[in-house]
Amino acid sequence: MLPIWPAAIGAPSPVLEAADFFLDSGDTATVISRCDVEAAAGRIAGRIRRTPVADIDPADYTPAGTVWLKLEFMQHTGSFKPRGMFNRILAAAEAGGLPSEGVITASGGNAGAAVAYAAKELDVTAEVYVPATTPAVKVDKLHKLGARVVQHGVEYAEAYEAATKRAAETGALFCHAYDQPEVCAGQGTLALELLEQVGEIDTVVLAVGGGGLMAGVAAALEGRARVIAVEPETIPTLHAALAAGGPVDVDVSGIAVDSLGARRAGTIAYQVATRTGVRSVLVTDEAIIDARRQLWDQHRVIVEHGTAAALAALISGVYRPADGERLAILLCGGNTNPADLAS
Amino acid sequence: MLPIWPAAIGAPSPVLEAADFFLDSGDTATVISRCDVEAAAGRIAGRIRRTPVADIDPADYTPAGTVWLKLEFMQHTGSFKPRGMFNRILAAAEAGGLPSEGVITASGGNAGAAVAYAAKELDVTAEVYVPATTPAVKVDKLHKLGARVVQHGVEYAEAYEAATKRAAETGALFCHAYDQPEVCAGQGTLALELLEQVGEIDTVVLAVGGGGLMAGVAAALEGRARVIAVEPETIPTLHAALAAGGPVDVDVSGIAVDSLGARRAGTIAYQVATRTGVRSVLVTDEAIIDARRQLWDQHRVIVEHGTAAALAALISGVYRPADGERLAILLCGGNTNPADLAS
Repeated sequence: MLPIWPAAIGAPSPVLEAADFFLDSGDTATVISRCDVEAAAGRIAGRIRRTPVADIDPADYTPAGTVWLKLEFMQHTGSFKPRGMFNRILAAAEAGGLPSEGVITASGGNAGAAVAYAAKELDVTAEVYVPATTPAVKVDKLHKLGARVVQHGVEYAEAYEAATKRAAETGALFCHAYDQPEVCAGQGTLALELLEQVGEIDTVVLAVGGGGLMAGVAAALEGRARVIAVEPETIPTLHAALAAGGPVDVDVSGIAVDSLGARRAGTIAYQVATRTGVRSVLVTDEAIIDARRQLWDQHRVIVEHGTAAALAALISGVYRPADGERLAILLCGGNTNPADLAS
Repeated sequence: MLPIWPAAIGAPSPVLEAADFFLDSGDTATVISRCDVEAAAGRIAGRIRRTPVADIDPADYTPAGTVWLKLEFMQHTGSFKPRGMFNRILAAAEAGGLPSEGVITASGGNAGAAVAYAAKELDVTAEVYVPATTPAVKVDKLHKLGARVVQHGVEYAEAYEAATKRAAETGALFCHAYDQPEVCAGQGTLALELLEQVGEIDTVVLAVGGGGLMAGVAAALEGRARVIAVEPETIPTLHAALAAGGPVDVDVSGIAVDSLGARRAGTIAYQVATRTGVRSVLVTDEAIIDARRQLWDQHRVIVEHGTAAALAALISGVYRPADGERLAILLCGGNTNPADLAS
């Protein structure tokens, strides 16, 4: 493995400088560790798909020695999210059996679908709270996965509040979209699987919304590889948290807001990012659109705009690998409308 | 490996019966063999991508023990075709250097793009003949790959005739879309790669147009695994050849005509199919559309209608694997308009 943060990465950008001081923040709280991720991998084995890895020509994008695409969009429900949701539910089941009152979440997107899917597979009931403004197609998808869908309020925050209140009343197991240790640890199993598939690795590049995937992956790879956390400039949730010394609300907008649009980084994400030295970089919406287009044109894979942010960091040069670097790009979600890629 | 053609495959369908007598046709001509495919693999190494394999839950489709999807649509230019075209050009180069008069083909589809791509990579000129009716988007794609595009006649046959005449005049190397030994042998490298990736295998299911891929794969797997050749009912080119005792012209139509619409099976395809006992099955356009939809809905991969015919054979039950069968489905092309998969 290359040394972490070699000088050869290139001149630090303002983006990298902004995050750097957190490497020495002194915050050593261990919220989740590699052991938690390893326990999760054992717990969810057989429930999730082992998604393939494509070895691509690095010269297309970087001077790196090897570039892999982890095709996690082929996971059940089209995103990495079931890893964390299975772990959340199965960890609770270890303590006291499967939750007889069912599970509950607030999400009209990938997290909601993952909770519904995991619940169905485990034969427990699922309630999914979404705002009344949620498109019918998303509600239908949740229905097809067997969930009871509750439309409440006009903003996500109202649906979230109602869901947590309902969980307190019924005793259902609340599954947070990203900020619970079991959820983060489950998402991190993606990194362990990747290591099994490709062996030693220097760098993992991934897109960040609320930070659940990033937290799990960074915990799994702590001391073994660096993690580059990529966000759109219009949704700088983790970036703002690192600058502010803790999670803060940010305004969110732009092309990837449907998948990465959490208003605030998770507390676990913040703590793991600072503890392990995750690097935060930002990309433009234009770079995201270009990266998503290149993935279709060059590789015939279709991903969400949010997912494409990871590759955008390489194409636009906000992360510059060293010569010979062994690098993986996580393509973590494919729940997108492919129509605009027609030619 | 399971025995070839175990009784457990299920009651023979009329489709299977129609093809069966050719297993004893006595035609033992060896047009291409596994050795040719192995030589091709050495020749094209480093020129083509090693495409990933996804291990999917067989219970989704069959009682088979293991089902793999070979994601060959991630190959350069979005289909398997460059394997054969690189082998065609590099084999000629071994005899007398790269063709100084360039290469030439007749195809507005995947074969044309593959010839243009291979020629560009090998720094030789490419001429691609297409009918005047070819959509501008396909002509533009060939131009982008650096080819000289010649639009001639209103039907494919006219463009083909003009291309062969031109090749005779200029001395350019003619690359047939499917019916040359080097082309077929190159396509067969896909099967050798698959064996390296998954080990022992019982069955490979693939879609057939002119039969170049089928011929190469069947030669590579001769005596090691069975090959199921799937065609739309509306394009029964190989099926008709097997029934007639040799390639014959058929009327072609239907949803997959753009990718599988050869009017006549290749002579090499016919000979290898009869020699090795390839099984021919037919699927409806409805089954093809359903299979393509399921690949997107369940796995977030997008393929051509013609490619989806392979999975359609499993979903519709015209091929029924035995319990425990180890089976691979070749997803060989992704040059499709994804717009109709939007939800």
